[in-house]
Amino acid sequence: MEWRHGGDWAGYERKYNREIKPLDFSANVSPLGVPAGVQEALREAACHADCYPDPFCRALRDAVAEWEGLLAGQIVCGNGAADLIYRIVWARKPRRALVTAPAFSEYEAALQTVGCKVDRYPLKAENGFQMGPDFLRAIEPGTDVVFLCEPNNPAGITTPYELLLEVIERCRTVGAQLIVDECFNGFLDHPEAHTLKPQLSGAPHVLLLKAFTKLYALAGVRLGYVLGTDSAFLETLYRAGPPWNVSTLAQAAGIAALEETAYVEQLRQLIQAERLHLLEGLQGMGLRVIPSEANYLLFQSKIPLLCPLRKRGILLRGCGDYAGLDETWYRTAVRTGTENGKLLAAIKEVLR
Amino acid sequence: MEWRHGGDWAGYERKYNREIKPLDFSANVSPLGVPAGVQEALREAACHADCYPDPFCRALRDAVAEWEGLLAGQIVCGNGAADLIYRIVWARKPRRALVTAPAFSEYEAALQTVGCKVDRYPLKAENGFQMGPDFLRAIEPGTDVVFLCEPNNPAGITTPYELLLEVIERCRTVGAQLIVDECFNGFLDHPEAHTLKPQLSGAPHVLLLKAFTKLYALAGVRLGYVLGTDSAFLETLYRAGPPWNVSTLAQAAGIAALEETAYVEQLRQLIQAERLHLLEGLQGMGLRVIPSEANYLLFQSKIPLLCPLRKRGILLRGCGDYAGLDETWYRTAVRTGTENGKLLAAIKEVLR
Repeated sequence: MEWRHGGDWAGYERKYNREIKPLDFSANVSPLGVPAGVQEALREAACHADCYPDPFCRALRDAVAEWEGLLAGQIVCGNGAADLIYRIVWARKPRRALVTAPAFSEYEAALQTVGCKVDRYPLKAENGFQMGPDFLRAIEPGTDVVFLCEPNNPAGITTPYELLLEVIERCRTVGAQLIVDECFNGFLDHPEAHTLKPQLSGAPHVLLLKAFTKLYALAGVRLGYVLGTDSAFLETLYRAGPPWNVSTLAQAAGIAALEETAYVEQLRQLIQAERLHLLEGLQGMGLRVIPSEANYLLFQSKIPLLCPLRKRGILLRGCGDYAGLDETWYRTAVRTGTENGKLLAAIKEVLR
Repeated sequence: MEWRHGGDWAGYERKYNREIKPLDFSANVSPLGVPAGVQEALREAACHADCYPDPFCRALRDAVAEWEGLLAGQIVCGNGAADLIYRIVWARKPRRALVTAPAFSEYEAALQTVGCKVDRYPLKAENGFQMGPDFLRAIEPGTDVVFLCEPNNPAGITTPYELLLEVIERCRTVGAQLIVDECFNGFLDHPEAHTLKPQLSGAPHVLLLKAFTKLYALAGVRLGYVLGTDSAFLETLYRAGPPWNVSTLAQAAGIAALEETAYVEQLRQLIQAERLHLLEGLQGMGLRVIPSEANYLLFQSKIPLLCPLRKRGILLRGCGDYAGLDETWYRTAVRTGTENGKLLAAIKEVLR
């Protein structure tokens, strides 16, 4: 089986037969580890994991609702955001969809399972992977679904808010559902300034995807949620896939994570500072780097990096399998200063 | 949202606004709780849940392969057996399927998501919910998929092994895929005598479903797996649904659970003895009870039981929503002697 994402430390360990986990820059998760309060909640939940999980995540949705300032009926939780991407596609069964290229590949993978025709809007390197107003023309009559990622992935660039508002209106006009993946919103310097949450009330065709995975370092626990104001559509998501999709452990972890405000504040400051250091470090080696606003950086190197870094115990995300990119592009997570220093030193060694 | 399964203690707590968990006979899980070794593994895994789960569950599949005496490539793990039921249906996209009535409702729910026509073979009360040789005639040319549950659910009855062998052959003849849900096999007095595992090698069209949920009391953790010898089909299951479906915690729990042989031995002895006590207790009140071979009992009461028992803090599974049953039928889990005693006393009180 071929694997098209980062974070495959297990595959690495198999191949290199090592006992020590590699230093993983291929997955964009918080480098601060599982918050202590969440670890405690997980340990506590382990004792009563003999009962089925609440299939409707009632207590978790109440907590998320309060945190987001929405109603519990405007929230559906999933086994990671990926679970929700597939459920939305299965509930909607679109015939024609629009995605950007590059983008998180699971939008297209999910769309393919229902035989959907996928149009790709190219985000070009020469424009800094920024979406332009011509995106509006790409949303045509007949477009059933539009997937966007804000900030986008793997470049980490946001779209001007005014343009996003026009995208919402254009989707409304043609009758398209707009799914905006805000999984990395929490890593922006000012998350609240860029979220489309304030637009939801007047726009039942808009869904926002959010995840605990990255911001709270819960990739192994699996927990995400979708926000929207079309409650009837949200209800169809429960039956669009298997029941009990969110484990008892994930529900407990999510409730605990929402209390971790100091963790998130510390994380955001770390990412803000380290993103700049890493950017400058890579640029200092003459590499082309896209100035991301998120917790990862897209950069280009004509000299191959993946294998030599793997031999040094470091995982990067090669971008050769992203539509619109080639194998000269790499994505690295922004991690702690010490870890980023090791990455920079290793890349310098390889380039030499 | 309507809920069509047992185990909804959270809905109960909402409705009755109680602090104490109800005594739950509506879900068929081991009454011995999460095994100590599994709790330990879950607590340990909580620390490194910041990394993505191994998307291919390599270490877990190795452990299951050794335990089952199969190859890792003949195993795919899922977020509970329910996840795998949906993945199989999405990968196969059947047009026509055969299920028994009654049966676990998720077979049909999954089939409906792909617009499949579902034929129902009635398991009749007058035959003790036993499948007859006429089932073979129900497998017609054009039948794409057949779902069976052994022992069946909610009656807990097994089909004669010879008839199952004929079902395998009949499915081969018409080109149908046969999915046999053996999630409750471990509760039989002699599990190894009834599993179809020895038949897999010559029958690539047969898939067996197994779960950790019930036998190891891991319903809240979510972990199941499918066994089969058509490796190419099994590989399609990974792409049929979202990636990273099995959490880091579930993978660790599964590996630890396979060590719990003493737990399973104790559980099997308990169920064997208590099933009989509970059966006799219910029969002693003049109720019609189907003599199950599993860890649950299907019985009939003309006097409504659900609400009066709920008021006493006890949950039963009402069977009114099962195709082929009506609201006079109930399913109860077999639990510990003390718990079963409380159930019997409460029912006696209601019937009086």
